[in-house]
Amino acid sequence: MNQKIGKVSMKPESPVYILSSASVVGKKEGEGPLGELFDMVGEDDLFGCKTWEEAESNLQKDAVYLAMGKAGLKPWDISCIFAGDLLGQSIATSFGIASYEIPLLGVYGACSTCGESLLLGTVMIAAGFAENVLCVTSSHFASAEKEFRFPLEYGNQRPLSAHWTVTGSGAFVLSSQLMYKNDTQDDNKADVYARAQIIGMTPGKIVDFGLKDSMNMGACMAPAAASTLEQHFIDFESQPSDYDKIITGDLGYVGQKVLIELLRDKGYDISAVHMDCGIEIYDAESQDTHAGGSGCGCSAVTLSAYILKQLEEGVWKKVLFMPTGALLSKTSFNEGQSVPGIAHALVLESIKAV
Amino acid sequence: MNQKIGKVSMKPESPVYILSSASVVGKKEGEGPLGELFDMVGEDDLFGCKTWEEAESNLQKDAVYLAMGKAGLKPWDISCIFAGDLLGQSIATSFGIASYEIPLLGVYGACSTCGESLLLGTVMIAAGFAENVLCVTSSHFASAEKEFRFPLEYGNQRPLSAHWTVTGSGAFVLSSQLMYKNDTQDDNKADVYARAQIIGMTPGKIVDFGLKDSMNMGACMAPAAASTLEQHFIDFESQPSDYDKIITGDLGYVGQKVLIELLRDKGYDISAVHMDCGIEIYDAESQDTHAGGSGCGCSAVTLSAYILKQLEEGVWKKVLFMPTGALLSKTSFNEGQSVPGIAHALVLESIKAV
Repeated sequence: MNQKIGKVSMKPESPVYILSSASVVGKKEGEGPLGELFDMVGEDDLFGCKTWEEAESNLQKDAVYLAMGKAGLKPWDISCIFAGDLLGQSIATSFGIASYEIPLLGVYGACSTCGESLLLGTVMIAAGFAENVLCVTSSHFASAEKEFRFPLEYGNQRPLSAHWTVTGSGAFVLSSQLMYKNDTQDDNKADVYARAQIIGMTPGKIVDFGLKDSMNMGACMAPAAASTLEQHFIDFESQPSDYDKIITGDLGYVGQKVLIELLRDKGYDISAVHMDCGIEIYDAESQDTHAGGSGCGCSAVTLSAYILKQLEEGVWKKVLFMPTGALLSKTSFNEGQSVPGIAHALVLESIKAV
Repeated sequence: MNQKIGKVSMKPESPVYILSSASVVGKKEGEGPLGELFDMVGEDDLFGCKTWEEAESNLQKDAVYLAMGKAGLKPWDISCIFAGDLLGQSIATSFGIASYEIPLLGVYGACSTCGESLLLGTVMIAAGFAENVLCVTSSHFASAEKEFRFPLEYGNQRPLSAHWTVTGSGAFVLSSQLMYKNDTQDDNKADVYARAQIIGMTPGKIVDFGLKDSMNMGACMAPAAASTLEQHFIDFESQPSDYDKIITGDLGYVGQKVLIELLRDKGYDISAVHMDCGIEIYDAESQDTHAGGSGCGCSAVTLSAYILKQLEEGVWKKVLFMPTGALLSKTSFNEGQSVPGIAHALVLESIKAV
């Protein structure tokens, strides 16, 4: 039976499988440390479109197409899509995936949206309402700068605590069933397969430490990450050493320090296993990306290209994947509101470990 | 067992109960035909706040407080909140419900968000991951005009096909269990109770007829409503006469005509049972609201104040509740994009009918 674990966490009766995934990124991400692992790297960040927003829509469209193809599925095999992005009224999503004609459940959790979509996709499958579900999120450096700060044409300066929004989209096919994969051309040796399995989830609440600096989102999100992580350890009666990696979405260099300190105060030392997608995706020094990468696309493409690869190959057995989001808009910022954070966590396990 | 029905619909094994609900609205809505049914009517639309956005946050906060209170629940009894609004990055939600410290799963489906939140809340409970879940959505005339069109101070003229965004928030407590209600002061006569039960769902896909007029959202959304409704009839092998009412969110007078026509072409005549929250909430003539009400709050407060009352009293036995959303942003509109629609449907049944 599916179970509520502890105060807010969830454990599906059967694991939900990540059958396949795809990552499509921009030029800068392609030049970063993970560059060779991405499925598709754009030559320029307009991806053949006229506007940044259209380009972001295309990122989602391509990521969904690739992920479905790798799972050997067609749009009519998918019950629904959980999708979101950072733009006002999630327009990258609205114009990105309409052509697939799959029921859409739009989600918004700022840069934590990838985690939220995977969590809800898992719930949908665990409930028995769907066999296959698609989760996709995206962000785009240029559309995000325009949406949250200034159009690029202003050429404004960025403080060292600022993040660089990742241009990219990650898509994931979740399923109740493993898929057949016959590598050997011998029907008798056909084997079942998935990239990884989701075996637990901890949804996060809004945490507001009152910070108001939208150019220091790492510090704004770290308290939410600490809150979800503490709740996760309590609910699952687990500890940092139970995971090969505890992976946050986009805390960056500033937020990482804050998170490790906050958790130390609560009695947990995650310093040996912590990894942050925003730190991994760029070479901060040579790529001038300051505090690190961010955006809905950051954790999504890193999960698809790098984290799932490690789980697939059995290099890591079990990780906690926890995208983090900063809840602000241009309006809330200009009206003097703080920047609260939110983080949702998923326990991902290697199929090889089972 | 929970079941996928037909191509995309869902039927929970056990009904999910709407234990309680609350509606908080602005002055104009209080003066409309449903005015006396709302739980709280503001004296002015700032609700004691300094900005329209803060006012909208307060609407959500109050609606959640009232709905929890009516169910006799405290924040720690609720596993998670599904919440959303129309503003960029859903900031009415981010600042409205943070203080309850309940895990948040943010949703976005434009004005269909109320339907999406109830659908996902039902899935969460049907999956067995939660006993009680809260769903809340809001909209605000002034914050929406600023977000999508022009600040009110511009005093721009509105065509007759334009909608009037409802200032209001509706909150709903969903539960796997009926609640005890002892009206008689006699413990032996304590009775179980809920406002209604959710027994089926049909999620909708994005439907784009290429219309570009953000001042005629009824026509933009009607094709999506027709698509979801047709899918619903096919999946559940049902027909219009199986429902006492088929209730759309905010098609208004223009969209209603389009919907009825589109469905007639597909062989379904819903004219005898169709009702639209956007038409019900205002007196179009005396309140000068043109095509009708709209916004995430429109269907939510009408459901809470009026539709659930009819189901509670057994006046209606079974209705189809289908909020409709127009997927646009100021940016997508200014970049010349069309306005696609989306609609999610829920089958609501009176407890008295069981």
